[in-house]
Amino acid sequence: MNITYIQEGETDTLSLKRSLDTGTEEQRQIVQRIIQEVRKNGDEAVRSFTKQFDGVFVEDPLVTEDEIAKAYERLEPEMIQIIQTAIRHIRTYHERQLTSSWFYHQQDGSMLGQKVTPLDAVGVYVPGGTAAYPSSVLMNVIPALVAGVERIVLVTPPGKDGCLSDAVLVAAKELGISEMYKMGGAQAIAALAYGTDNIQPVDKITGPGNIYVALAKREVFGQVDIDMIAGPSEIAVLADETALAHEVAADLLSQAEHDALASSILVTPSKTLAEKVQAEVQAQLDTLPRKSIAAQSIQDHGRIYVTESIDRAVDVVNQLAPEHLEVLTAYPESFLGQIKHAGAIFLGRYSPEPVGDYFAGPNHVLPTNGTARFSSPLGVTDFQKKTSIISYSQEAFETHRESIAAFARLEGLEAHARSIEARKREESK
Amino acid sequence: MNITYIQEGETDTLSLKRSLDTGTEEQRQIVQRIIQEVRKNGDEAVRSFTKQFDGVFVEDPLVTEDEIAKAYERLEPEMIQIIQTAIRHIRTYHERQLTSSWFYHQQDGSMLGQKVTPLDAVGVYVPGGTAAYPSSVLMNVIPALVAGVERIVLVTPPGKDGCLSDAVLVAAKELGISEMYKMGGAQAIAALAYGTDNIQPVDKITGPGNIYVALAKREVFGQVDIDMIAGPSEIAVLADETALAHEVAADLLSQAEHDALASSILVTPSKTLAEKVQAEVQAQLDTLPRKSIAAQSIQDHGRIYVTESIDRAVDVVNQLAPEHLEVLTAYPESFLGQIKHAGAIFLGRYSPEPVGDYFAGPNHVLPTNGTARFSSPLGVTDFQKKTSIISYSQEAFETHRESIAAFARLEGLEAHARSIEARKREESK
Repeated sequence: MNITYIQEGETDTLSLKRSLDTGTEEQRQIVQRIIQEVRKNGDEAVRSFTKQFDGVFVEDPLVTEDEIAKAYERLEPEMIQIIQTAIRHIRTYHERQLTSSWFYHQQDGSMLGQKVTPLDAVGVYVPGGTAAYPSSVLMNVIPALVAGVERIVLVTPPGKDGCLSDAVLVAAKELGISEMYKMGGAQAIAALAYGTDNIQPVDKITGPGNIYVALAKREVFGQVDIDMIAGPSEIAVLADETALAHEVAADLLSQAEHDALASSILVTPSKTLAEKVQAEVQAQLDTLPRKSIAAQSIQDHGRIYVTESIDRAVDVVNQLAPEHLEVLTAYPESFLGQIKHAGAIFLGRYSPEPVGDYFAGPNHVLPTNGTARFSSPLGVTDFQKKTSIISYSQEAFETHRESIAAFARLEGLEAHARSIEARKREESK
Repeated sequence: MNITYIQEGETDTLSLKRSLDTGTEEQRQIVQRIIQEVRKNGDEAVRSFTKQFDGVFVEDPLVTEDEIAKAYERLEPEMIQIIQTAIRHIRTYHERQLTSSWFYHQQDGSMLGQKVTPLDAVGVYVPGGTAAYPSSVLMNVIPALVAGVERIVLVTPPGKDGCLSDAVLVAAKELGISEMYKMGGAQAIAALAYGTDNIQPVDKITGPGNIYVALAKREVFGQVDIDMIAGPSEIAVLADETALAHEVAADLLSQAEHDALASSILVTPSKTLAEKVQAEVQAQLDTLPRKSIAAQSIQDHGRIYVTESIDRAVDVVNQLAPEHLEVLTAYPESFLGQIKHAGAIFLGRYSPEPVGDYFAGPNHVLPTNGTARFSSPLGVTDFQKKTSIISYSQEAFETHRESIAAFARLEGLEAHARSIEARKREESK
């Protein structure tokens, strides 16, 4: 892990931005063909692609009560309890995000407002295979539930044995999800976006997936809404000399094990800490089961930036706009005002990133690739939409009639002015 | 304007959805080339494209105080006052949308929260030429101002004489915008996204434009955020037999004059009203200055749907999810619960659509193309972003340490578990 000394005014060139994987031309064509097939042949096409890509024939992809019961039998009772506790925490946090409709009346009798409505139907994609993430179920489903979405559909690809992850099934059942399909890849995205005989279409699709899922989501965007397409995960640690090197190193590595493309970055004014962390990362790396992934990530995207002061370190953080930011300083709260751009901020040594990844409450779907400059974590408002309400009274209308017509004509829109003036004829009705 | 009788259960096939104009391959290549040129040659490239596309050489595109002063001299004082009144209304409405940061503390001493921050810098594109829309300035700038965006930059293409619209300049000045550039097209979008020697880059670009602007916004998306790319405008009028045919017709035509692709739709259970509106539209059409546009729009995309009841008419509206919805019935407010999908709802005959287009307060940037099922009007929250805050106390950490580590291992993420367990060593520090 290289140490770079950052001089005043050099921060501008730092960036976490990397070009997103937009797939090869061949992958894009495969995805387009799959979507066309599913639009044309529906359930039959889904069955055929599941056989082809997941290696298993699934006659009816709808998950049965029996399958769920078996998942409960197999999963350790302690894990079920942990999932239940996580659900409670995540729900409590997201309930604070709920927004309501509002209206106000004016002296002239007119009423203006904003109506907030949940989406009708949402599809959540949960990756399958070796990486079964029940936390993806919680983080995508709970905000939709809190928003009041009536129909939440879960799709996840079956293993070669036709089965799903026990933890995923239990997490979904604990949230009351009853419509789950054993299907994945671009075919699942197409079925959710356009519907089949057996599956009603949804209005929005969220959740992570491989490159085919990401390309399919891009392709159906517009037909339905989608969540952001995430880049590789990132952590930045803002630390002063009070941070403990072995903790910083462990936190950097917890990011690095996700993906060889993940970025783990330490920003500190302390040269001593920088050197200690450098040594600790190397030492801890050797003992990790996902060592090869983490080592690659650290080598390619791991960085230690040493700045002239802690304030300059904050500048670096704002420049990077990291997905996750840990603040490991003597008084971490004191930086909340200065830090402008980050997906999630973890304050102090008792808030290592895994605390927030699936347990504390906030969402783990966060803006990557420097987009925390303008994007937000997934939340309840992503599953609600707003409608403006305008109810002008006769008095308000009469007061402003000429102004509105004049404005319309200023913009060259005569029929707009006449729509206003059409109301003049009322008396002679 | 055709009348279609809708039977029970036939609503499913109705749709406002049309494929968005994604441009020709040639247009996409032109836009890519322009963006590359501006990234490479900056201000020089912008000057060159302005000469080429707008037919005028602009040495320094920054609008001067002198140009603004001249615009004030030329615009009628009454129009300046109308713009000021509109600004007051729009600001009052949007101030209600402002959301704040929140935090909560738990018994165990941990703190969770959500920090709301305005974007740093926003660019607003305002079309030039014959269609100078000061309302675009108001509707894009005011939400950003209310959100607290510090730097708002306006770009708009110069006319062949090198000048801008007086109304656009005055509207911007009234809002306190001091950074305005005479540049348009893909070159303006590229300059905003990537910056030049004279123009600092922004974080988000909003505002309408022609196909080149739309393609350029798509191209720079990811580098910066963009607002939605709007389809043709739409109005649906939900009316019963109490509606006045000449008012309904005038309102339908005010939409139709925007664009030959615009959709104007009446949904009513009243056959009598349907026939009267049909005749009125024809009669009023002939007297409009933008008659040819409106006539084309009515012919291609105008529809009158007659349903078996008013409730079925509401079903049709929800199926269409129109950008604008006027409710012209005896008790319009009574439908607010039933109507689920619309960008903006105009209640009663004193709220024709032009009332809301630039004057009443709500935003006129609304979801088109049926996307009101999942999208919202442009608003203050589009110029704010959120950051999750997690501050676990030692007590909270000790309580949940094992659960968090166990969850990490369930997901196969050993380094996550070790990041938690690294904190155990504290005592022996």
